[in-house]
Amino acid sequence: MELRIDRGAPRPIYQQISQFYRTRILQGALPPGFLLPPERTLARSLGVNRTTVMNAYAELKADRLVRGRVGHGTRVLPTSRDLPPRPREIAPLRWSDLARPSDAARDQELHDLLALSESRDTILLSLGFPAPELIPRQLLDDAVATVLRDRGPGAYFYGPAEGVTSFREALGDLMSARGVVCGADEILVTSGSQQALDLLARALIEPGDTVVVEEPTYLGALHVFRTARARLVTVPVDADGLSVDHLEHVLTRCQPKFVYTLPTYQNPSGALMSPRRRAQLLALAYRFGIPIVEDDIYGDLWYDQAPPPSLRALDRHGYVIYTSSFSKILAPGLRVGWISGPRAIVRRLVQVKQAADLQASTLSQMIVEQLLRSGGYARHAAAVRSRYAARRDAMESALRKRARGWAEWNRPGGGFYFWCRVTAPVPIGVLTAAAAQRDVSILPGAACLAEESADAHIRLSFSFAGVEEIAEGIAHLTAAVRHASGRVRPSERQPVATRPLI
Amino acid sequence: MELRIDRGAPRPIYQQISQFYRTRILQGALPPGFLLPPERTLARSLGVNRTTVMNAYAELKADRLVRGRVGHGTRVLPTSRDLPPRPREIAPLRWSDLARPSDAARDQELHDLLALSESRDTILLSLGFPAPELIPRQLLDDAVATVLRDRGPGAYFYGPAEGVTSFREALGDLMSARGVVCGADEILVTSGSQQALDLLARALIEPGDTVVVEEPTYLGALHVFRTARARLVTVPVDADGLSVDHLEHVLTRCQPKFVYTLPTYQNPSGALMSPRRRAQLLALAYRFGIPIVEDDIYGDLWYDQAPPPSLRALDRHGYVIYTSSFSKILAPGLRVGWISGPRAIVRRLVQVKQAADLQASTLSQMIVEQLLRSGGYARHAAAVRSRYAARRDAMESALRKRARGWAEWNRPGGGFYFWCRVTAPVPIGVLTAAAAQRDVSILPGAACLAEESADAHIRLSFSFAGVEEIAEGIAHLTAAVRHASGRVRPSERQPVATRPLI
Repeated sequence: MELRIDRGAPRPIYQQISQFYRTRILQGALPPGFLLPPERTLARSLGVNRTTVMNAYAELKADRLVRGRVGHGTRVLPTSRDLPPRPREIAPLRWSDLARPSDAARDQELHDLLALSESRDTILLSLGFPAPELIPRQLLDDAVATVLRDRGPGAYFYGPAEGVTSFREALGDLMSARGVVCGADEILVTSGSQQALDLLARALIEPGDTVVVEEPTYLGALHVFRTARARLVTVPVDADGLSVDHLEHVLTRCQPKFVYTLPTYQNPSGALMSPRRRAQLLALAYRFGIPIVEDDIYGDLWYDQAPPPSLRALDRHGYVIYTSSFSKILAPGLRVGWISGPRAIVRRLVQVKQAADLQASTLSQMIVEQLLRSGGYARHAAAVRSRYAARRDAMESALRKRARGWAEWNRPGGGFYFWCRVTAPVPIGVLTAAAAQRDVSILPGAACLAEESADAHIRLSFSFAGVEEIAEGIAHLTAAVRHASGRVRPSERQPVATRPLI
Repeated sequence: MELRIDRGAPRPIYQQISQFYRTRILQGALPPGFLLPPERTLARSLGVNRTTVMNAYAELKADRLVRGRVGHGTRVLPTSRDLPPRPREIAPLRWSDLARPSDAARDQELHDLLALSESRDTILLSLGFPAPELIPRQLLDDAVATVLRDRGPGAYFYGPAEGVTSFREALGDLMSARGVVCGADEILVTSGSQQALDLLARALIEPGDTVVVEEPTYLGALHVFRTARARLVTVPVDADGLSVDHLEHVLTRCQPKFVYTLPTYQNPSGALMSPRRRAQLLALAYRFGIPIVEDDIYGDLWYDQAPPPSLRALDRHGYVIYTSSFSKILAPGLRVGWISGPRAIVRRLVQVKQAADLQASTLSQMIVEQLLRSGGYARHAAAVRSRYAARRDAMESALRKRARGWAEWNRPGGGFYFWCRVTAPVPIGVLTAAAAQRDVSILPGAACLAEESADAHIRLSFSFAGVEEIAEGIAHLTAAVRHASGRVRPSERQPVATRPLI
């Protein structure tokens, strides 16, 4: 056994020394009572400063592996426990004690909602699933055939962690069409935009860091930021998007790691951030030196007129990281999303991606690339816009016809959602259960809120159900409201302590 | 504005109160100097204990949002900074300061190695890539066609986070064939086995937790565990696998979160853990109450005789989590791996998976399922075994012919690697560079070591290059050793301070 110092290694020399002894003590090569070399001697023999050795020994002492006494040298301590006796009966492992703590209740809720995708009887107004019948099956099948013919076995092989190079070039062209000058090295391909958010959280958030989110916001983002143990600070959203006045106040009080925003057809509120707000938001970011994470997953899903340029397109100073995905328009099952951002942070995100899962599916990337290059994506996006517009209109007219007495809402100009405030005296939990009994699934608004006070909103998605199903769903939901209102005992009418305080 | 307490929410009531006030103060709704309600009054009006309100106010004080003085009540403090002036010039964001610290040097190294997969001139002996020509293109193309025909648009759609149900059932059958009784609910489909390790790290490791790894071990696992900020404790590997004697010593000194092992054709050492060692390892796990993570990615790649049963097959008490993948035998670009483990931890891992990227590619899962059900996977595995055995033999005979003077190695019974100790007086960094000049890429052994002392190993992979290329590669490598040995100045012969200490 010999101690070899590597002066070129990333780890400091004192840690190489402590690591060497730690390993040998832990493995039993240096038994209890063994005398380590005197600091001076070891320093001389390694050709290092004595302080370096002192720091190494200090680490071992802190780990209770050795004890040093003046005049007695540094000796290995006895083991902290004896070998336990062979157990008569082997106890099962308590995995729940071993796992890190989590918001298990919330996690389970989201999981159960996603599991619904396998059931067929329910009118699904809860989730932001695209319509299965609007997935361009023939277009995709043809793209698969072309990829398998032209890209050969490469479609089944490893590629670069940041994504297939030719696909990133095609994404660069897509970004150009969206007004963003963006080279392939400013793009990272992700396994859907959920992973884009997760990689950002892992690259940027230390536990306890503050992240500003819109209230309400995308529930999957809350999930990711909570998992990263961020402290969430909220800023309200109105019809023009994130309230910059509120954000300005927040920024005078705290220094968030970034602001997460969905400026375009916000999930769940449907709000479209006005051009003026976009400019104001960027000005605040520049002034306070705060990055912006722009989630543009609904940007191509506009129904009345095209939205204003994205924050990333307006940003001239490299403050905006942009995420999007092909899940809503092409095929969620392919799991292809992307991040476009300043080169410095993309490079870092590539490293995080590589440790997470090496790379996104090569086959999936090449299928989407084929549809970008053939123009199939653009044509299909235009086609689905009119189909989803019809669903949006169907939900609006069903709500007008049936829900005026029990809800308030805004007509969204794009995206997938109506964000409804329930004015009837029914707790949302009761309403959700009553709706489920009538085979309608809705999303309680609280799932979209960072603040856990009781809330009277529900999110209704018009993307998955067809036009007739939407009308039927709203009718059943209205029946559920009536039934639940009638059954609510007066004491339950106010589900929570509600008192005007300010 | 009203404060609404939700008694059913996961967050404690005092935090709901502090959160309510924090948000309003941060957003500027409660200006500096604003007097919060007296604790007693607020407690009464909310119907909660006064201590609850006191705890809430204490949090706000700790955040420097309010100040409380006896007799003066609790008041909102002034903002911590004024609005900065509009900058004349907007500074670019310093992303590298914003990102979490990382082992960037190591990350970059791994990334550069993977990027090599796009270059064509190099004889690649460094990476554990399967041979592109052994990827069963026709089999896969046929499976794709069958999936698109039979599973319709479902192949493009979302599925459950834990993986497509029918695919998990097929994986259960595969596990049964491997001696593991395993229901679909004990399986989680991952985006390759790299993600399996990452999910395990995220579910189990708190920063500072100890993880036991073999020395040497899989470099991607080191990457994941370091990213999770685990403290790595090593146990050596000999020809019979992980040294259980050393492990026993370690376990009397510390309580690791788990032991990570590749018992079958270990990467990089090629070691096959003997049946006796497997039993001893499990006995230690039971005795000390330590979980085992078994990485079985090479289990189907045996060249002389089938390996002994996996640890998971031998484990009767739910201590072993098993990971594997289809990347080495079928197609790495599909990104399909899986975890099989006790229900309790799989359930938790599903939640982590969902926050990470919702689910693995549905299309990829169905393609692999089709090949499991048709028997195509089993037939192809048998076919590639003989092809890789020929490459293993080619590398061994090339080493015998050329490398006896400069290296020592063991013949591996399976897997992809020779782990060679370089006996010539050449620093590995110099050798790697000299080999690269001759268009041969090798992996410095230090990449596989948790301990960062200088090391004299290289890992040679025989999976990617063909039989003739392997012979040519070893010839070039030998020339590189000769050339580098001749050029090494005496002062460089010992690249590092090397002194016998014990």
